[in-house]
Amino acid sequence: MSAEGDEAIQRLIALMARLPGLGPRSARRAVLQLVKKKGALLLPLAEAMREVAETARECVNCGNIATRDLCEICADPKRRTGQICVVEDVADLWAMERAQVFRGRYHVLGGTLSALDAVGPEELRIPRLVERVREEEASEIILALAATIDGQTTAHYIADQLPGTSVTSLAQGVPVGGELDYLDDGTITAALKARRAL
Amino acid sequence: MSAEGDEAIQRLIALMARLPGLGPRSARRAVLQLVKKKGALLLPLAEAMREVAETARECVNCGNIATRDLCEICADPKRRTGQICVVEDVADLWAMERAQVFRGRYHVLGGTLSALDAVGPEELRIPRLVERVREEEASEIILALAATIDGQTTAHYIADQLPGTSVTSLAQGVPVGGELDYLDDGTITAALKARRAL
Ligand SMILES: [Zn+2]
Ligand SMILES: [Zn+2]
Repeated sequence: MSAEGDEAIQRLIALMARLPGLGPRSARRAVLQLVKKKGALLLPLAEAMREVAETARECVNCGNIATRDLCEICADPKRRTGQICVVEDVADLWAMERAQVFRGRYHVLGGTLSALDAVGPEELRIPRLVERVREEEASEIILALAATIDGQTTAHYIADQLPGTSVTSLAQGVPVGGELDYLDDGTITAALKARRAL
Repeated sequence: MSAEGDEAIQRLIALMARLPGLGPRSARRAVLQLVKKKGALLLPLAEAMREVAETARECVNCGNIATRDLCEICADPKRRTGQICVVEDVADLWAMERAQVFRGRYHVLGGTLSALDAVGPEELRIPRLVERVREEEASEIILALAATIDGQTTAHYIADQLPGTSVTSLAQGVPVGGELDYLDDGTITAALKARRAL
């Protein structure tokens, strides 16, 4: 046997250690905690994971996580149409939602253009964005992308694909090289209010 | 809806955030990772958790995590009998095992005596240790407890319960106030070799 007991425990530790933010040591601590709190934590967690595995999918419209074809935001009639906020990933969408300042809809690119990693527009959800702008007669596209080179390259590429549409971008408050998901709500609110035309 | 999408996702994030070492932000990151790697990570993790929940229990002999009545160490005929290493918790047992220097068996106390937290001998697995020493005719009890006040109080209490039995304690290398699970293998090896009689 190995140091960490039987196979099922070892397998659980190895899988937990693959989660972002957990190394082998914290994975071991987490598993001991789980075994101690079998009813209060381990079983509910296993069940929540199974449920998410069965239901989670990509929203066919915007790329957000959804449990049906359309995510809760795309399906919500109270969300303003005609204003689409473009984010790199779902973590950024969640950060925007926590700021509670944007009432339109989203478009999740799934990454940024990257010459280095050979990520082109077809790898992202850019063609679908162009379609949506036409279909939904969007009046404003707000780019909430990171202030990195790849983020800004992506922003300019999207603006070029949408001539005649107002394309703005979060400006004030997004630190150079900073990622959206690390910002506090106030900074996101300020950046949204000070958005400027590209 | 809340910022983090539908109920199942929110529930999973809230449960993950209760794991040691994960806060709300890293729990969100972890859940997004899980959804992205549904087949490679989320489903195997849900399954491993279910399996551990169904099989994991306490070894009736030593208190280690087990999948049967006896843990793999107590059931292993190649482990030396007559030498019992006493640890506070299973994380410490795993740390000892990783050092690969001890070939006897263990006894997991489940804590240390603590006047402050009102933890007495009956709350720990001390009466069972005294029984085992008699039953297994143990010739040496090695106390691998933290060099904290409660750890040392516990060590002396155990030594008092076992007159006529050789009770040693890890010595050199365990930093004052230090916890065993943080030590590297070499330090544990040195401490075991330099153990001294109480
Ligand atoms: Zn959607
Ligand atoms: Zn055992």
